[in-house]
Amino acid sequence: MSGVDITVGIDIGGTNTTVGVIDRGGQVLTVTKYATNATGGADSYVRRLALTVEDMCAGLPEGHTLRGIGIASPAANHRNGTIDRPANLSWGTINIVEMLGEYFDLPITVVNDSNAAALGELKYGSGKGMKNFVVITLGTGLGAGLVVNGQLLQGETGAAGELGHVTINPQGRECGCGRRGCVETYVSATGIRRTAFELLVQRTAESRLRTMSFVELSAMKLYELAQTGDTIAREAFEVTGKHLGRLLTNIVAVLDPQAVIVSGGLANAGELILGPTRRAFEANVLDVYKGRVKIIQSALPDGRAAVLGASSLVQSSLQEVAPT
Amino acid sequence: MSGVDITVGIDIGGTNTTVGVIDRGGQVLTVTKYATNATGGADSYVRRLALTVEDMCAGLPEGHTLRGIGIASPAANHRNGTIDRPANLSWGTINIVEMLGEYFDLPITVVNDSNAAALGELKYGSGKGMKNFVVITLGTGLGAGLVVNGQLLQGETGAAGELGHVTINPQGRECGCGRRGCVETYVSATGIRRTAFELLVQRTAESRLRTMSFVELSAMKLYELAQTGDTIAREAFEVTGKHLGRLLTNIVAVLDPQAVIVSGGLANAGELILGPTRRAFEANVLDVYKGRVKIIQSALPDGRAAVLGASSLVQSSLQEVAPT
Repeated sequence: MSGVDITVGIDIGGTNTTVGVIDRGGQVLTVTKYATNATGGADSYVRRLALTVEDMCAGLPEGHTLRGIGIASPAANHRNGTIDRPANLSWGTINIVEMLGEYFDLPITVVNDSNAAALGELKYGSGKGMKNFVVITLGTGLGAGLVVNGQLLQGETGAAGELGHVTINPQGRECGCGRRGCVETYVSATGIRRTAFELLVQRTAESRLRTMSFVELSAMKLYELAQTGDTIAREAFEVTGKHLGRLLTNIVAVLDPQAVIVSGGLANAGELILGPTRRAFEANVLDVYKGRVKIIQSALPDGRAAVLGASSLVQSSLQEVAPT
Repeated sequence: MSGVDITVGIDIGGTNTTVGVIDRGGQVLTVTKYATNATGGADSYVRRLALTVEDMCAGLPEGHTLRGIGIASPAANHRNGTIDRPANLSWGTINIVEMLGEYFDLPITVVNDSNAAALGELKYGSGKGMKNFVVITLGTGLGAGLVVNGQLLQGETGAAGELGHVTINPQGRECGCGRRGCVETYVSATGIRRTAFELLVQRTAESRLRTMSFVELSAMKLYELAQTGDTIAREAFEVTGKHLGRLLTNIVAVLDPQAVIVSGGLANAGELILGPTRRAFEANVLDVYKGRVKIIQSALPDGRAAVLGASSLVQSSLQEVAPT
């Protein structure tokens, strides 16, 4: 008997790290999620990560053989194996492939988290069977992975898909990138909080939001308030969806995709955000696209797409979709 | 001896039709340009086109064999062989491949004019040796062809690259597509005329433009006036370049190309438009792209890129870049 080949997929997030052990069929055999705690330094982070992977693999029945590790991370440089000064991780630039290679003599690769999510959707998620689609990840920022003709669109330096930094208003909100009016300052977990506070200024309506500080407010709280009927919270989702729908009219004119798959924390609000997104999209898109581009919520559990996509990069059967 | 294999490339424009006879090395052996005169109907147009091709090939030295015909056209549907209700040609929908096939028992194909131009640049022009670039064509509208990883980005229905209909101001100028604020209402031969007239309203400066009607004014006249130092005309180029530079910051964030190649009538204004384009781009693009993306004028003569690109589609050696 040949045993079971497995791979590990890791999603390094600013808040949490998710590690999954995956078989060749894309079944997640076991998954662990823990606080990233980047402040302890990169060496200590990688040590803990290696121990976690070893523990998870050791816990599997006999005959399972680890064949490789795929890592999804913000600011990943797939070609160099590095993570370059990620905004939410205080590590500077580290070579995560070399560092983890000290623990495992196996193929290890790192890929941008949005690209990993797009690969996960392509292979195991809502993008299965599609050749042209866009994956939007709504987290702290807005990330995107672009699949074109069945392959990841990487661009010249692997940085394609930075949709979060499409400018929608040159005089608009300050962005972490040092510019103004990037769409992620409106459409993201952070963006919707800014919008909610803007609405508190513009509207006279009563709202539980009026008793909260900006720091206290999270996208999750906003969602809970919207579900209780809080008009300001509901309008914040409406406005956010409108901006996203508008963005998508432009992206669709450029890329002509079949579908847009929305994932990430904010996507869990479902129709509350996707409803206004679709309405703004249909009202404003070029005629030829009306009624033709599906805007759907990812069917994979939160964060699972990136883990699956990263792990798929070290499965030989998936070489054809691997970034170059 | 095996003789010389030749192909014909045809660029159907709203104003002029260009026909080129091209050898396998991409040398244009002979070229003819004449008024499209679409009002006479499609049958009569195609008859004249066929006669032109026959005449041009008959005029070549013995031993030349025509192997195929590639057509570049606005509103082309590469998969069906049709031209679908082109805005500037009063033919409705015609199957140009079938119609021209009545005259030639040869491979014939039709492709969107902007995609043809991108293929021409890729094979014979400024895009030679590059794998990721954008070709912007500034004519009556703004067209674009996108080359990604050495291949034309077509999208799900072959309609990708409609950059002219990226919205830059939802409350902006009315567009022929029925929407408002599309970038081509600002950045195109028509767009710059609208901008010049807007400036006549906003500025008090003397200008030769004040004696001209909107219909009298052409992009070419505007160029001539700008060269004489007319401040309104110069500012019109400045404003147009600014809009183009801003558009390119967004396109670069999405596609991560090495270069942007600008072609079409308005590109002949050279630095007058490319200078402000580059300045606006460098001032506003994401830091990682500063100083790294070349914005250049096409090195091919006007219209030649589309003729070469279309002809390349029927050369077997170019199958790898052919749209699917």
